[in-house]
Amino acid sequence: MQKILFNGNWVDAQANGSFQAENPATTELLPEHYPISSWGDIDRALAAADTAFEHLLEMPRERIAAFLEDYAERIEARSAEICQLANQETALPVEPRLASVELPRTTNQLRQAAAACRDQGWSLPTIDRQINVRSYHSAIGPIAVLGPNNFPLAYNGICGGDFASAIAAGNPVIAKAHPLHPGTSRLLAEEVLAALRHADLPAATVQMLYAIDYSDGERMIRDHRLAGVGFTGSRQAGLKIKAAADWAGKPVYLEMSSINPVFILPAALQERGDDICEELKTSCLMAAGQFCTSPGLIGIVESDLAERFVSQLKEKFNAAPVGTLLAKSGQLGLAAAIDKLQSLGAEVVCGGTSGGGNGYSYANTLMQVSGDQFLDQPDDLQTEAFGNATLVVRLDSAEQGVDVARLLEGNLTGSIYSSNVGADDAAYAPLAKVLRQKVGRLLNDKMPTGVAVAAAMNHGGPFPATGHPGFTAVGFPGSLRRFSMLQCFDNVREERLPEILRDPNPTGIVRMIDNQWTTESV
Amino acid sequence: MQKILFNGNWVDAQANGSFQAENPATTELLPEHYPISSWGDIDRALAAADTAFEHLLEMPRERIAAFLEDYAERIEARSAEICQLANQETALPVEPRLASVELPRTTNQLRQAAAACRDQGWSLPTIDRQINVRSYHSAIGPIAVLGPNNFPLAYNGICGGDFASAIAAGNPVIAKAHPLHPGTSRLLAEEVLAALRHADLPAATVQMLYAIDYSDGERMIRDHRLAGVGFTGSRQAGLKIKAAADWAGKPVYLEMSSINPVFILPAALQERGDDICEELKTSCLMAAGQFCTSPGLIGIVESDLAERFVSQLKEKFNAAPVGTLLAKSGQLGLAAAIDKLQSLGAEVVCGGTSGGGNGYSYANTLMQVSGDQFLDQPDDLQTEAFGNATLVVRLDSAEQGVDVARLLEGNLTGSIYSSNVGADDAAYAPLAKVLRQKVGRLLNDKMPTGVAVAAAMNHGGPFPATGHPGFTAVGFPGSLRRFSMLQCFDNVREERLPEILRDPNPTGIVRMIDNQWTTESV
Repeated sequence: MQKILFNGNWVDAQANGSFQAENPATTELLPEHYPISSWGDIDRALAAADTAFEHLLEMPRERIAAFLEDYAERIEARSAEICQLANQETALPVEPRLASVELPRTTNQLRQAAAACRDQGWSLPTIDRQINVRSYHSAIGPIAVLGPNNFPLAYNGICGGDFASAIAAGNPVIAKAHPLHPGTSRLLAEEVLAALRHADLPAATVQMLYAIDYSDGERMIRDHRLAGVGFTGSRQAGLKIKAAADWAGKPVYLEMSSINPVFILPAALQERGDDICEELKTSCLMAAGQFCTSPGLIGIVESDLAERFVSQLKEKFNAAPVGTLLAKSGQLGLAAAIDKLQSLGAEVVCGGTSGGGNGYSYANTLMQVSGDQFLDQPDDLQTEAFGNATLVVRLDSAEQGVDVARLLEGNLTGSIYSSNVGADDAAYAPLAKVLRQKVGRLLNDKMPTGVAVAAAMNHGGPFPATGHPGFTAVGFPGSLRRFSMLQCFDNVREERLPEILRDPNPTGIVRMIDNQWTTESV
Repeated sequence: MQKILFNGNWVDAQANGSFQAENPATTELLPEHYPISSWGDIDRALAAADTAFEHLLEMPRERIAAFLEDYAERIEARSAEICQLANQETALPVEPRLASVELPRTTNQLRQAAAACRDQGWSLPTIDRQINVRSYHSAIGPIAVLGPNNFPLAYNGICGGDFASAIAAGNPVIAKAHPLHPGTSRLLAEEVLAALRHADLPAATVQMLYAIDYSDGERMIRDHRLAGVGFTGSRQAGLKIKAAADWAGKPVYLEMSSINPVFILPAALQERGDDICEELKTSCLMAAGQFCTSPGLIGIVESDLAERFVSQLKEKFNAAPVGTLLAKSGQLGLAAAIDKLQSLGAEVVCGGTSGGGNGYSYANTLMQVSGDQFLDQPDDLQTEAFGNATLVVRLDSAEQGVDVARLLEGNLTGSIYSSNVGADDAAYAPLAKVLRQKVGRLLNDKMPTGVAVAAAMNHGGPFPATGHPGFTAVGFPGSLRRFSMLQCFDNVREERLPEILRDPNPTGIVRMIDNQWTTESV
C-alpha cells in the first residue's frame, strides 16, 4: 500500500480501504494499491497544516517563490516518467498532450505563481494617508485543493493552478489526488517534498491524501482549521463541497459544469462554414471532448447551409478516431447524459453507442434539436454530456438564438462567429448583450477550448459554472486573491505593518495611495 | 396605507398585512401604516428590475454618476425633515448624530460612489496584448439590498453603502426598507425617484418595499432574476439569507455579528489606563452601543491596575446616561444575551436590568469573566450582546490573551493597546499575529467604533462577521467589486469591446497591460 504525504514525510495511512487505478485504454488494473484515508489522516493533516501556516506567515516571500520555481524544475527533470505514468492512468497521449502541452503549462503556471508571489501586486496594497488606514490581501490559512480527472498535471491538486495560487498567496495546501491518477500525483508529490526540503519551508506546507469518503471530506471542509477550498470537477461533487463550505462560511472556489455555447451567425456560415465546421469538430473531439470548455451546444440558424454544415459535421465526427475516455465512470456518465438528451427529444445524428475506441470509449456523437424544442425544455436540454458529444440547436432565426441565450445557465464560455465584413452585426449585438452576462469569457470567431494562462484570462463564470462569478481559476496574479482575506491596519505603528504597507516603497510596486495608483513612497 | 416604489411610481402594494413604526423613546406608535408586501409585489419588482438592467447596460456611466450626485444633493436639501423623522423612528439624536454625522456620511458615500462609477478603476481592466484577451469587472444584475436597524441613513437599503456601490457598479437595486424606520426610508425614496427622473435612468433602477415575509424573501433571493444580495443585520437573519443565496449560487455580502475584541496590554494600562478607560466607555456607550463595531470583549491582564480599571469603568458606566434602544426587540435581545452570559458564569459588575432610560432601554452593563472561564466556554461566551453592554475577560497573563484570541470567531475588528515606549512589544507580537487572521481590521491604540469611508478601509472580516473575508462593505472603489462579475473578452473585435478595454486610453485610467499597471494606450 502506498503511503500518504503527511507533514514532510511519507507515512502509512490510517486507511478505511484501498483502491487501484486502471489503464482506461486497456481496462486493466494498475498494480499499485492506494489508501482511502480515514478521518484520522485528515485530522492530523489539518493539525500539521494549521501549525505550518503560523510558520509560513513568518517566511520571506522569496523563499516561497523559489520553492515554486524549484518544484517546476524538478517536474521538468522527471517529465518522461511523470508523463508515462499519467498516460497509463488517463490514456491521454504522451505527445503532444502530456509532455509538450500540459506539463509545460503546469510548470509555466508554477513560475507565474512564483512571480506573482515575489511581486505581491496581487494583494492590491491600499493606503489612506490622512487617516493612516492601510490594507491589502493576505494569506488566509490551510486550503484543500481537489483536482479533476481530466488534467492530471495542470489542475492536479498537488501542482495545478489552484495549488500554485494558494501557495503563492502564502497558504498551506492539503491536496487530494484524483483517484483516477494516483500514481502521477505520487510522483509529483515526491518532487514537492524534495522542493519543500530544499527551500526549508514548513514540512506541512504541502500534504497529500489519495482518497477520502464523502462524509470525511465534508467534515474536513467544515473543520475550523481549514480556511478555504479549491475544487475542479463535476457539478454533483461540487455542489456537495459547496454546501459544506457555505455552511461553515468559508470561501470555496468551484469550477463545475459548463456546456460552452457556440453561436454561428448566418453570414459567417456563408463566408466560411467549412472552416468553422473543421474548427468545431477539432474543438469537440480533442481529448475525447473531456475539457471543461468543450463546446456542448451549437446554435445555428436554419437554412440549406445549416443543413450542409450539420451533414459535414456528421461526416467529420464519423471519420474521426474515437478517443479513449478517462474511466469507465466517464463512459457511463456520457452514455447516461446522451440517453437523457435523447429521451427529451434530441435526435442522434451520428454516434449514440458505447465503444468504438480503445478501452473505455463512446462513439463521437452529434445530436440536434430545434430551437422550439430547446425553448420548451431549456433546463433539461442543458444537461452536460462530458465527452465527445455535442448538441446542435437549429434555430428559426437569429432572434430565437437570443431567446435561447436568455435561458442559459451560467457557463465558463460563450462564442459567437460572425461575418468578417459586418453582415452579422445586427444579429451580433443583441445576442452578445445577453450572452455576455451568462458567461465568464466571451469569444469572437474562436472555439472555447484553449485557456491561456494570462492575467486577463477568466476561467470562471456565473453559477453553476462556478460558485462565484467574480473570480478566475486561471491566470496570475488575479487567481491568488481567491485564497486571501482583506486585511486592514488602522493606526497600526509603521514597524508593525507588513513591509508592503510601510511608507517607503523600495521595490517600486504599484499601490493605491489616497485613491491614486502610484509607485511613489508615502 | 403607504405605497411602495415600483418601476418609477408609487403604487398600492399587494399587501399581506401592514405595520406601524414606533417611537422607541416614547414607545408610542407612529401614525403611518406601511404594507407587508406579498410575493406579487416582489415578482413585479423583479420583472421590472430585470428589464431595467438591460437598459442600464446601455447607459453612459456619467449618467449613473450624475444621478448619485443629484440624489445626494436632494437628501441634503431635505435633511431637516429626514433627520427629524429618523429621530422619531430610531431615537437617535438629530444632533450631532443624524444631521451632522450620519447624513453627511451618507451623501459623502453617494458622491464617492459616483466618482468610482465615473473613474471605473474599480473594474481592474486587464489586457494581454499578444493573445488579445481582455477583462474587467462589470455589472451583474439586480441586487437586493437589506439594510439594518441601526443606521437609518448611512446603511439604509435605499441610500446607504451597499445601495451606492451596487448602483455605481451598474446594477438596479431592490431596496427593502428596515421596518423600524419606514418613514425615513420613504422620504429618501421620494428623493431617489425625483433623481431617477431627473437623470432619465430606467424607472426600475431603484425600487423599494417596506417589509416581506421570510418565505417570500427566500423566494426572492432564489429567483433567477436577482443577481446578488447585500445585507447588514443580525446573524440570525443573515444566515437565512446566506442559505437562500448559497443554494442559488449567488454572491451574497453579509455584515452580521461581531464582538470586536479589545486587548489592553499591561504597560499601556500602566502608562495611560485612565485615558483608555474613558475611550472605552465612550466607545461602548455611544448610540447605546448599537454599532456593529462596538467593543464587546475586553481582554486585560490581571493586576491591581486592572482591578482599578474595571472599577473606574464601572463608575463611568453607572454615571453615564442610559441611551434609548432602537426598539423593544433590541431591549429584549440585549436582555436575553446578558441573561445567557450570566448563566454561563459572567459576573455582572454593573447594570443587568431593563429600563433606566427613555422608552426602550437597558442599564449600561459591565460583565466580567476570568480567562479560564472564557477558555472553558469560548463559543458561548462570544454571544453578542448588541447594545450598551460589554464583557471584560480578566486574563492570567498576556499569553492567555493569545489563547483567547486563538478561539475567537471571525470579527470585523480587533484592537490592541500597547505601551508607547515599547514595553509591551514582546506581548504584542504573538497576540497580533493570531488576532490578525481573525479580524478584518486590526487597530492599534484605538477603539473600533468609527469606520472611515476610505479606499483602504475594511468593514468586513472572516465568518461569521461577514459571509466572505475578501470584501469590504465600506470604502470606495473596492466595495463596488462585490456587485460585479469578471468579464473576459477573448479575441473580441475592438469596436465591440467596452470602451475601457479598447486600445486607446483617452482618460488615462490605470490598466494592467501585459502584467504591468500603466496609463498608456495599447
